[in-house]
Amino acid sequence: MKKIQETLNKIQPLDVELMKKAQARLDRLTKPQGSLGKLEEFAKKIVGITGQERPSLEKKIIFTLAGDHGVVREGVSAYPQEVTSQMVYNFLRGGAAINVLARHVGARVIVVDMGVAVDLKPQPGLIIRKIGYGTRNIAEGPAMTREEAVKAIETGIELMEEWGNGDMVGIGDMGIGNTTPSSAIIACITGVEVKAVTGRGTGITETQLAHKIRVIEKALEINDPNPEDPIDVLAKVGGYEIGGLAGIVLAAAARRIPVVLDGLISTAAALIAYQLAPVVGPYLFASHKSVEIGHAITLDKMGLSPILDLSLRLGEGTGATLAMSLLEAGVKIYNEMATFEEAGVSSK
Amino acid sequence: MKKIQETLNKIQPLDVELMKKAQARLDRLTKPQGSLGKLEEFAKKIVGITGQERPSLEKKIIFTLAGDHGVVREGVSAYPQEVTSQMVYNFLRGGAAINVLARHVGARVIVVDMGVAVDLKPQPGLIIRKIGYGTRNIAEGPAMTREEAVKAIETGIELMEEWGNGDMVGIGDMGIGNTTPSSAIIACITGVEVKAVTGRGTGITETQLAHKIRVIEKALEINDPNPEDPIDVLAKVGGYEIGGLAGIVLAAAARRIPVVLDGLISTAAALIAYQLAPVVGPYLFASHKSVEIGHAITLDKMGLSPILDLSLRLGEGTGATLAMSLLEAGVKIYNEMATFEEAGVSSK
Repeated sequence: MKKIQETLNKIQPLDVELMKKAQARLDRLTKPQGSLGKLEEFAKKIVGITGQERPSLEKKIIFTLAGDHGVVREGVSAYPQEVTSQMVYNFLRGGAAINVLARHVGARVIVVDMGVAVDLKPQPGLIIRKIGYGTRNIAEGPAMTREEAVKAIETGIELMEEWGNGDMVGIGDMGIGNTTPSSAIIACITGVEVKAVTGRGTGITETQLAHKIRVIEKALEINDPNPEDPIDVLAKVGGYEIGGLAGIVLAAAARRIPVVLDGLISTAAALIAYQLAPVVGPYLFASHKSVEIGHAITLDKMGLSPILDLSLRLGEGTGATLAMSLLEAGVKIYNEMATFEEAGVSSK
Repeated sequence: MKKIQETLNKIQPLDVELMKKAQARLDRLTKPQGSLGKLEEFAKKIVGITGQERPSLEKKIIFTLAGDHGVVREGVSAYPQEVTSQMVYNFLRGGAAINVLARHVGARVIVVDMGVAVDLKPQPGLIIRKIGYGTRNIAEGPAMTREEAVKAIETGIELMEEWGNGDMVGIGDMGIGNTTPSSAIIACITGVEVKAVTGRGTGITETQLAHKIRVIEKALEINDPNPEDPIDVLAKVGGYEIGGLAGIVLAAAARRIPVVLDGLISTAAALIAYQLAPVVGPYLFASHKSVEIGHAITLDKMGLSPILDLSLRLGEGTGATLAMSLLEAGVKIYNEMATFEEAGVSSK
């Protein structure tokens, strides 16, 4: 818990003075003021986050954390649990969507086993930081102990220290069944009813969705997590990869590194971090508006609005990569465009 | 007119059979079916457009066409006319927004003088295909002769033949005052009232906007363009760069090359092309939803929905570049992801 507290203590508000200077520069560039809309907002916010007058977002890192979930025994997912480990191997071979999109935008993917149910074959590129062999079934009791929840978050902080040496961090997930704990976390912390934050995940039927909602309601009832204590929420209805992602969010904010969220799971993880320290909010970017209905509600709670709306619902960090490229575009506009004076262009 | 007719005759519908094959491949990739939403739709449409089973969008070309507008004498723009030529020089030095964003996504910018009001200094990278020294004032009479309108479109076709040897084409504009003819074209062809399709362009005041609307209404009244004859519309209330862009759209579709629209002006140009041959519609992608209110109405008329919503209102092709990168992401997903069989991942 000491590592978490130390990290929380380091998180500072954005540099508002530098953001004013950034706005002044944006207004001198050869375009009508504000005509590049959100690209200009991105640049200004990145300046405030990094505390750098001319930041770069060239070095992009995606953390894709994997974990399994005991609640899959309740039949909440369209896919069998073995897919989690199979997909981790797919990540390591470069054949998954996150690999393709990370290559496209020039990002590096860091793949971590936070708690896959089986032992994965050690190999280059695979970071094994298992907290356990899948969580326990939240429909029957807590997902993990409080100690495991703390360890998951602290592992995320350590991952950021070891592998997060970049200009911008995107967070993604892999874990069959993990929309179930994510919706449980969101319902608990936002206070919104379960059915309003629960979707079809990888593609379950209407009947299965009704069942999934009942499973989440039961998990919240049996475990009774305390919304004011996000570590309790993580322990009782969360997941190992979700805890790890929450730790990455905290550690990135502590180092003034912008964090790009992906879909429902990474956003539920960010909500845990936000509930621990609302000061992380300004460090976050919402990459896209997921098809999962709990996503928009969670972004709203943290004061974020999505950059893209491409009907994505895959996870892994896929939406985050695409938004990272747009954020970088905004920063390049800010750094590379000529001013009216430099270009000899008349102003209004 | 012969060149236009020949081009129109070459435009074919998309290859629907190949699109079915593409869908089958998309459904075998290691992700829940449809979970990459619009990225999957992009890939499928690109297959249908190109007629290639495994297309590439690596070679990206942006045409930024410049022209001046006599109607600026009516005080419809926030900037003086000299900015058009000054910005062309800015493009050639690489200091404008379009240069920055094209570099970011790996696109080449082709800069063309279609009708700037002054003689530009010949220099590497500048293509001079002047139809005239700015259009005439549409508030007093036609912008150009019918012959000039035909020549502008044919010049666009020639530009595509000479410089359009790529996998994908984006179209952009530069021309102080050119939201005025664009709104006039849109009002005429869609039949929507002028005030519902007219915005603030580079940033005029409320009073200036009311005046701009009156100028457009007057231009349509005096010139009485025939909405069924898009060349008449272009001649009476259009612009040289708008005609050139319309020609590029037609020639790209004739060569099965996808076309990415930018903001109000390029979309008005596409509307001219669409009105000449609705079969071009499926070759178009709407890159973004502009702040200009006439934009969404025009996209709707052509059955297009915008990919991005970043509150852009700059033009030059800026929005198009960003969307091109997302289209390429979709095609890479389609080409590079492993299938369930290849990756040994269990399906549902």
